[in-house]
Amino acid sequence: MASDISKSSAAEVLQAANDKVFIDLLWVMIAGFLVFFMQAGFALVETGFTRAKNVANIMMKNMMDFGVGTIIFWAVGFSIMYGTDVWGLFGFSNFFLSDALQADGSLDTWLYAEWFFQAMFAATAATIVSGAMAERTKFTGYLIYTLFISAIIYPVVGHWVWGGGWLADLGFYDFAGSTVVHGVGAWAGLMGTYILGPRIGRFVNGKAKRISGHSVALGTLGVFILWLGWFGFNPGSTLGADPSFARIAVTTNLSAVGGALAAMLIAWYKTGNPDLGYTLNGALAGLVAITAGCAVVSPASAVAIGFIGGAVMFYGTRFLEKIQIDDPVGAIPVHGFAGIWGTLAVALFAQQPYSSSFEGLFFGGSAYQLLIQAVGITAVLLWTIGTAYLVFKVTNVTHGLRVSEVEELNGLDQNEHGMTAYPDFFGVDEVRDMMDLDIEQELTLVKEEKLKIDL
Amino acid sequence: MASDISKSSAAEVLQAANDKVFIDLLWVMIAGFLVFFMQAGFALVETGFTRAKNVANIMMKNMMDFGVGTIIFWAVGFSIMYGTDVWGLFGFSNFFLSDALQADGSLDTWLYAEWFFQAMFAATAATIVSGAMAERTKFTGYLIYTLFISAIIYPVVGHWVWGGGWLADLGFYDFAGSTVVHGVGAWAGLMGTYILGPRIGRFVNGKAKRISGHSVALGTLGVFILWLGWFGFNPGSTLGADPSFARIAVTTNLSAVGGALAAMLIAWYKTGNPDLGYTLNGALAGLVAITAGCAVVSPASAVAIGFIGGAVMFYGTRFLEKIQIDDPVGAIPVHGFAGIWGTLAVALFAQQPYSSSFEGLFFGGSAYQLLIQAVGITAVLLWTIGTAYLVFKVTNVTHGLRVSEVEELNGLDQNEHGMTAYPDFFGVDEVRDMMDLDIEQELTLVKEEKLKIDL
Amino acid sequence: MASDISKSSAAEVLQAANDKVFIDLLWVMIAGFLVFFMQAGFALVETGFTRAKNVANIMMKNMMDFGVGTIIFWAVGFSIMYGTDVWGLFGFSNFFLSDALQADGSLDTWLYAEWFFQAMFAATAATIVSGAMAERTKFTGYLIYTLFISAIIYPVVGHWVWGGGWLADLGFYDFAGSTVVHGVGAWAGLMGTYILGPRIGRFVNGKAKRISGHSVALGTLGVFILWLGWFGFNPGSTLGADPSFARIAVTTNLSAVGGALAAMLIAWYKTGNPDLGYTLNGALAGLVAITAGCAVVSPASAVAIGFIGGAVMFYGTRFLEKIQIDDPVGAIPVHGFAGIWGTLAVALFAQQPYSSSFEGLFFGGSAYQLLIQAVGITAVLLWTIGTAYLVFKVTNVTHGLRVSEVEELNGLDQNEHGMTAYPDFFGVDEVRDMMDLDIEQELTLVKEEKLKIDL
Repeated sequence: MASDISKSSAAEVLQAANDKVFIDLLWVMIAGFLVFFMQAGFALVETGFTRAKNVANIMMKNMMDFGVGTIIFWAVGFSIMYGTDVWGLFGFSNFFLSDALQADGSLDTWLYAEWFFQAMFAATAATIVSGAMAERTKFTGYLIYTLFISAIIYPVVGHWVWGGGWLADLGFYDFAGSTVVHGVGAWAGLMGTYILGPRIGRFVNGKAKRISGHSVALGTLGVFILWLGWFGFNPGSTLGADPSFARIAVTTNLSAVGGALAAMLIAWYKTGNPDLGYTLNGALAGLVAITAGCAVVSPASAVAIGFIGGAVMFYGTRFLEKIQIDDPVGAIPVHGFAGIWGTLAVALFAQQPYSSSFEGLFFGGSAYQLLIQAVGITAVLLWTIGTAYLVFKVTNVTHGLRVSEVEELNGLDQNEHGMTAYPDFFGVDEVRDMMDLDIEQELTLVKEEKLKIDL
Repeated sequence: MASDISKSSAAEVLQAANDKVFIDLLWVMIAGFLVFFMQAGFALVETGFTRAKNVANIMMKNMMDFGVGTIIFWAVGFSIMYGTDVWGLFGFSNFFLSDALQADGSLDTWLYAEWFFQAMFAATAATIVSGAMAERTKFTGYLIYTLFISAIIYPVVGHWVWGGGWLADLGFYDFAGSTVVHGVGAWAGLMGTYILGPRIGRFVNGKAKRISGHSVALGTLGVFILWLGWFGFNPGSTLGADPSFARIAVTTNLSAVGGALAAMLIAWYKTGNPDLGYTLNGALAGLVAITAGCAVVSPASAVAIGFIGGAVMFYGTRFLEKIQIDDPVGAIPVHGFAGIWGTLAVALFAQQPYSSSFEGLFFGGSAYQLLIQAVGITAVLLWTIGTAYLVFKVTNVTHGLRVSEVEELNGLDQNEHGMTAYPDFFGVDEVRDMMDLDIEQELTLVKEEKLKIDL
Repeated sequence: MASDISKSSAAEVLQAANDKVFIDLLWVMIAGFLVFFMQAGFALVETGFTRAKNVANIMMKNMMDFGVGTIIFWAVGFSIMYGTDVWGLFGFSNFFLSDALQADGSLDTWLYAEWFFQAMFAATAATIVSGAMAERTKFTGYLIYTLFISAIIYPVVGHWVWGGGWLADLGFYDFAGSTVVHGVGAWAGLMGTYILGPRIGRFVNGKAKRISGHSVALGTLGVFILWLGWFGFNPGSTLGADPSFARIAVTTNLSAVGGALAAMLIAWYKTGNPDLGYTLNGALAGLVAITAGCAVVSPASAVAIGFIGGAVMFYGTRFLEKIQIDDPVGAIPVHGFAGIWGTLAVALFAQQPYSSSFEGLFFGGSAYQLLIQAVGITAVLLWTIGTAYLVFKVTNVTHGLRVSEVEELNGLDQNEHGMTAYPDFFGVDEVRDMMDLDIEQELTLVKEEKLKIDL
């Protein structure tokens, strides 16, 4: 009888182990699917909050930064991020997922799951950039940049923090990537829009002029999809069957709400209206802000972190307008400024028993972690700004990064993709035809702000 | 050797227990994510089936009833629903999820998962209301109501049925909330629209005039998303790893199909066309109807329940038009009338072995369960109507619940949110500009039904 | 003490077994939910890439082919597919899921899950057809066909390959349905469009004229949703807790990327523009192509299979235009031609250790498998073409399959469903009113290609 028990237990041990592996896989992959869906969210937010004449271009960029990004991240990026460490700076092995084929001829299934989840993160960093550069970037120029962020810029940062690099050694903490993912996307976007310059008509005589999005319904749907995807992004960063993911979903949600509330209230106070655009970006800012600390703070702290994240986004947006940086969808304040805040907030709000390792300044911790967080933020910012500047500058000089003024005025869909996005509706194109203006005349009128309608 | 077995078994027991907990969590959380996504579905249905001039307002309401709703449900609502029972009427403990921090200093992860899932349900009840009140409600008035439904109105009902309150004691059965969630939303919406009164131009000389939705593509996408979300809503209400959730998904799906078929056929017969709006609402009515009994009826019964639910929705819509209640998206017939039907249907169609506890009238059960179901429906209806009436009435008198006629005509986007939703398209606003009418003149023309186009 | 262990082990075995069952169920059901969501993806792709005047019709067809399809697949289709085998040709038992109620009075939960997942596949096959027949098919005619594909055409093929029929016996391999699902949909669609004939104005003097889609934003969203759904479609076809599903998601994703890249590059070279429509269909072609072999090829092979799939789609689209077959959304090249390629590719690229059973020609296998794959493809093609031809021909003769020319010109929304999809926008209808043409005059002008705008 004892031997019976023994046998059944052995089989059971194996089964339980298999089940465990499968449960780990299942959660990581489902979380990865949710993060994949964020690509649709980003595409909708970007297209909804820009003009009808650039829809196809934006969709192409969002589709292809994912496409090019994933394939490059498979060939090179994942290796730089998680390959054998070289001087704490980058990884270098496992190109094309070669390690998945193990010495004994079997496959390392877990590696596929890990790659899948991480590839979705890499694609997130890449796609954030397109929002900041919307409505005036050459499609080819954008594709070139995509190669570099997916192969090098993002993976190197990923290695520093999550791949056992020097920031990990230092104790820098960024659970799901406020800085690693969202920061990198935002700072690359900042360099992109800086080199491109603002869209025609965005700043007139030094004052910012609102260029309205063409479909707030699609934009809002995009935010809902991003919010959903974040339930994979943050909770999935447990990278396996860890029950704390439920708690992480709760902090994630509450922070998003805090961000939306803050942005709505501040915009209401400052502009007189509960503005939809600010509110939506407030929710996103709340989500970005909690990404670094979602696993180590209390729900109440999550509300505070989100709330301040929403405020940071609002004033950051105003600040960028003041210095005449044109960021059509607010990618930099949402992913960059709120990301800095969230990364610092870890060192303020971390608290036991939510956090098992360290505590934040507000709960008895030392200021040392805050310093480390600041070092990490700065290092990532400098690296990303430096490399992205190089890529965009070289592309600009050798190939050209921005479309011509006439192309921009006509819309990128026509000139870059040979189509219009809404041929069945009477819109901007038809009004333009009726005005019967020469494109050069039109350009002059737009610049002098003498056209009432927003073309 | 025996001790080896012993050790491995002990470790295994622990592992198996941990896995079990994680599997429970995993399913409840994934189901919760699906229910979260229903928020996007409701927003799209509501905006798709109303006019272009109110898109931003609808999106703001749908975003913020979720936002305000979740935060209030965290602070108060969950406590009223599942806190320590007071006289079978409401709960009162665990505010701000305080119980999650256990006496031994550890965290009760399961409580976070439970809260998350329940919070999505609370948000569903809240958002149903916005559909019935669309296109004429002040944003601030709506926010006020949202506080009350999430803090008190819904949680009290939830306590009665699912929190161990008096209806639970009585034996009232509502598996996933035909009455608890959808009924509460519908009856609150009924009070809202009753106090608001119909939109300008909806009833002319006592006859209902169709006000067409501005984007049936978005509306239909919304229904697909809701249908998807319902696979979390109903099967997820197992609240853990119970294999019956697969069967529940089957009954849920078949009932939706039954509802769509019934509504399509009846509308075809009555109007001469297979009407898209009715068909979509038929699917939703089928989903609402099966929500109470999805776990205890056969697939064949599910088809019947859905079919009758679709019919109830159709005639209910007609009935509301006859008594001049303006429900822009049909929230009351879908969530209220079909919900009543579904809650009663439990006592008719419940059947072994699908049901393990009781059987319905059609399968040998007694009429007693039917009586209990009727008591529950009535109690929830009276409570919700009473409290919602109070909230809306007081808001109306003190603050104002409805925008001015001019604001309604111009659209809520302009006056409440300072924007238009589709600035790149030639639409209603431009036609209005071309007509060059004074807004007061226009108002008169609309009321006298002398304008051909639907502004 | 030993007996204690024994007891806890027994309970544990039971628990582990239950957990195992639940994990299997959980993955299959979640995968099924993702495949369900593909219905929304197909609806958006179809409506986005056709005209505004047919939106409601397309949404109705997509909603009801799922509705009618699922209910028929429950009543009949599943029985024909997986019922007791009759001569290797079809199944015949378990109508209305009668086997789920077991002899001992308990329920076979697993059967519900299996049915759910398979029903979503059946609905996929059905809905592919609507794309090829868009913008000119009578709604009633379409419903009739839906009955037959869900009850007989698809289930018979399913039985041959997955239900233990003659192609299974022969060794035909199609993991998730490049041929079984996508082939059947495409060939039925081919027969539909063949019998219908092209849309008015599609081919003028023997040359294809582009009829632009009315909303590329919705179309692109549809592709993102389909891509997401495919992570259920392919990985879910493990039909249980098999860790290889992670690897399958990776090959699925890389093939999609390969397809998008190929189509973009070829279209760029051939038309001068990186065309959005071709790129999106390229991604879908990559997904279809990898569906047969996703479990048995390496990631690198997946890129190649997708890349060639994208190319096949591009040239296939051109070929159909040349022989004047009007397939509004490219359903036949995407699901049919790329499906053939993918089914053949199994016999070329299968490779150990990805494949455990056989190897492809490129990795040391014999040509025999290629022959079997060709036999399977041909058999499915002949069966589907034959039966679909019969259904459509008989429907056409007895009932009528195509709307009148005037109805087609006015749009199917008006004549088939009594509505317009975008009443708030100034579009085609209004332009038509302004032209004040008689419908017969207009028809003549369109046919003679004398109208500049695309009505």
